[in-house]
Amino acid sequence: LNKVFADLPVTIFEAMSQAARDNNAINLGQGFPDDPGPEDIRRAAADASLNGYNQYPSMMGIPELRQAIATHYGHWHGLKLDPMSEVMVTSGGTEALTSAILAVVQPGDEVVCFQPVYDSYLPIIRQAGGIPRLVRLEPPGWRLNEDMLKSVFNSKTKAVLFNNPLNPSAVVYPREDLELLARYCQEFDVIAICDEVWEHVTFDEHKHIPLITIPGMRERTIKVGSAGKIFSLTGWKIGFVCAAPPLLRVAAKVHQFLTFTTAPNLQAAVAYGLGKPDDYFLSMRKDLTRSRDRLTKGLESLGFPVLKSQGTYFLTVDLSPLGLNESDAEFCWRIVKDYKVAAIPVSAFYEQDPVTSVVRFCFAKKDQTLDTALERLSDAI
Amino acid sequence: LNKVFADLPVTIFEAMSQAARDNNAINLGQGFPDDPGPEDIRRAAADASLNGYNQYPSMMGIPELRQAIATHYGHWHGLKLDPMSEVMVTSGGTEALTSAILAVVQPGDEVVCFQPVYDSYLPIIRQAGGIPRLVRLEPPGWRLNEDMLKSVFNSKTKAVLFNNPLNPSAVVYPREDLELLARYCQEFDVIAICDEVWEHVTFDEHKHIPLITIPGMRERTIKVGSAGKIFSLTGWKIGFVCAAPPLLRVAAKVHQFLTFTTAPNLQAAVAYGLGKPDDYFLSMRKDLTRSRDRLTKGLESLGFPVLKSQGTYFLTVDLSPLGLNESDAEFCWRIVKDYKVAAIPVSAFYEQDPVTSVVRFCFAKKDQTLDTALERLSDAI
Ligand SMILES: CSCCC(=O)C(=O)O
Ligand SMILES: CSCCC(=O)C(=O)O
Repeated sequence: LNKVFADLPVTIFEAMSQAARDNNAINLGQGFPDDPGPEDIRRAAADASLNGYNQYPSMMGIPELRQAIATHYGHWHGLKLDPMSEVMVTSGGTEALTSAILAVVQPGDEVVCFQPVYDSYLPIIRQAGGIPRLVRLEPPGWRLNEDMLKSVFNSKTKAVLFNNPLNPSAVVYPREDLELLARYCQEFDVIAICDEVWEHVTFDEHKHIPLITIPGMRERTIKVGSAGKIFSLTGWKIGFVCAAPPLLRVAAKVHQFLTFTTAPNLQAAVAYGLGKPDDYFLSMRKDLTRSRDRLTKGLESLGFPVLKSQGTYFLTVDLSPLGLNESDAEFCWRIVKDYKVAAIPVSAFYEQDPVTSVVRFCFAKKDQTLDTALERLSDAI
Repeated sequence: LNKVFADLPVTIFEAMSQAARDNNAINLGQGFPDDPGPEDIRRAAADASLNGYNQYPSMMGIPELRQAIATHYGHWHGLKLDPMSEVMVTSGGTEALTSAILAVVQPGDEVVCFQPVYDSYLPIIRQAGGIPRLVRLEPPGWRLNEDMLKSVFNSKTKAVLFNNPLNPSAVVYPREDLELLARYCQEFDVIAICDEVWEHVTFDEHKHIPLITIPGMRERTIKVGSAGKIFSLTGWKIGFVCAAPPLLRVAAKVHQFLTFTTAPNLQAAVAYGLGKPDDYFLSMRKDLTRSRDRLTKGLESLGFPVLKSQGTYFLTVDLSPLGLNESDAEFCWRIVKDYKVAAIPVSAFYEQDPVTSVVRFCFAKKDQTLDTALERLSDAI
């Protein structure tokens, strides 16, 4: 069987969710809220299931949703997208990324990735015959610098895969880092595949800047988004790919043979959701900021050194000052069993030279869930 | 960009559906019904959207659906499947097939395919580095024979991709052909990837026999099914992969990086649907038989030589006796423009040495739709 996949582990998210179920633990591992998601959007899906279209929609997505995506990014970022030639709907952010990677990467191409790296990137790059070139980011800042880029960009570099806001590190990259990356992409004629699924989940003064809006990047960036993350409906698996027509055209050819198309009743509900006023998105951020602060304070009061989260559903804790004598992974497998709380070890996001002292917790949960988890963790360290 | 995909055409199904929209034509091309699909199943989806789970389900599919799939095949075919280790839910039949192909095929492997060939197979085999070995099937019977298999199976053959019931030919293969294929798979130690999405859509005395139930095939077959086809809800994109644990395990590793998982609200509705009594499936077949007969009679009375459909939503017409002096593709592009009826040229399913005289019509439509199409076609030949 195919060596690229045969020996891979089950993703850490699935493995830890399974461990949470097996141990009857509170699941602060995999990134999903424990509420049912916005009722009006779910009602729109119910309506579309009963009264709307349920047969094959257009392969690229229903026109209303493609228009809504274009309008949305125009409104939030001044990004002008032609809905017909620059926007595609996929079955989730994962399919969007896989379509983009398989569209761009050919055998022998080098692809720059940043560790911590989301676990789908490297296997798909390898399936395409590409060679990942890994940059290692580190806590507490996880910032880019020129030396890193200098050491990996070269004439064989075909693409860079960049996740911002960065899961699991909860960093929202400032313009300075994006401009640095953009400069290297242009100098080496590289395509940027941007995993921006967390774009709306940002806190405090941190604002997400799409790489495609940085000067010089419009024609060389494939932007990936996710309705599951924007609307806290992670199960729906509606993703977006936005790119200039020559790039989108090839990503669409991949998509047509990965899933072909995506449930039109759920697409209609997402189109409805994207039409919601700014307030909706701002109050989602406010609610998540509250949850972040609740878990941060609680963990800090138990003695955990929390690294401040700028975005995503996650915060991280750096165990190193605690002198625990166990790795992040050992810590996570211990607490899910002994304390009935699941979290994700950040080392799982490294293939080489892992950072082994950082643990990720999901705070997109009800107050009660967070409080019970904190109680359970009260003598974990 | 990736040569495997960059130069591919848009699928004929999408292209012809677009031509149907552009020409205001009746779309008897792409295979989907023009009714909204079973109301109770759509209601189950609506209920699950409002009251059920909408966050990440298990990567392999919700347990209720995996159990329902196992029970369903046990009931209909005496096939015993362990729902936890032998059943996976995907985002449609296309993703199921792509997961299976990428799980099995490695660079240099030969893969036997039968023309007419569904258009996703060859690009994905090539993306995996595999080499398609094409067998040419012909009207009117489209049957397999030993010479065909002898000419392509060899020690480099890794897999065979077999579609039964066969789209576009509307053949349901008899046990004899399946046993022949099974013998070659065993002799050459080959894995069979079986696209059986049309398994429930069979007519008259023709019954679908899953290849996995032929002696010797249980451990070497990956069976692909589709709820969209079973329940005439083609947009939902819920597929199934059933295989022995060593095969399923690798297909799951691919799936986790193609889409990761599939909308749980729609999965719940499909689980409900699979629990329906036999009557439901039998009356679906009866309704489609009526539609098949209506379109067959109508076309015959206009002078079209119709090849009898044994299954699928399709029947085919062989233009060759008509002496039209145009290919199937020319005929299709002419009638969508001049007569406002879309159909699919069967030559689009051949990469080499096409059969160019056969046209596929979808009859899974309301009587009124079929009748209007027939009226429009009254002087097309
Ligand atoms: C696809 S499961 C992973 C979900 C997620 O974004 C995370 O937990 O990091
Ligand atoms: C994925 S679109 C094709 C649908 C279908 O099964 C057909 O029309 O052959």
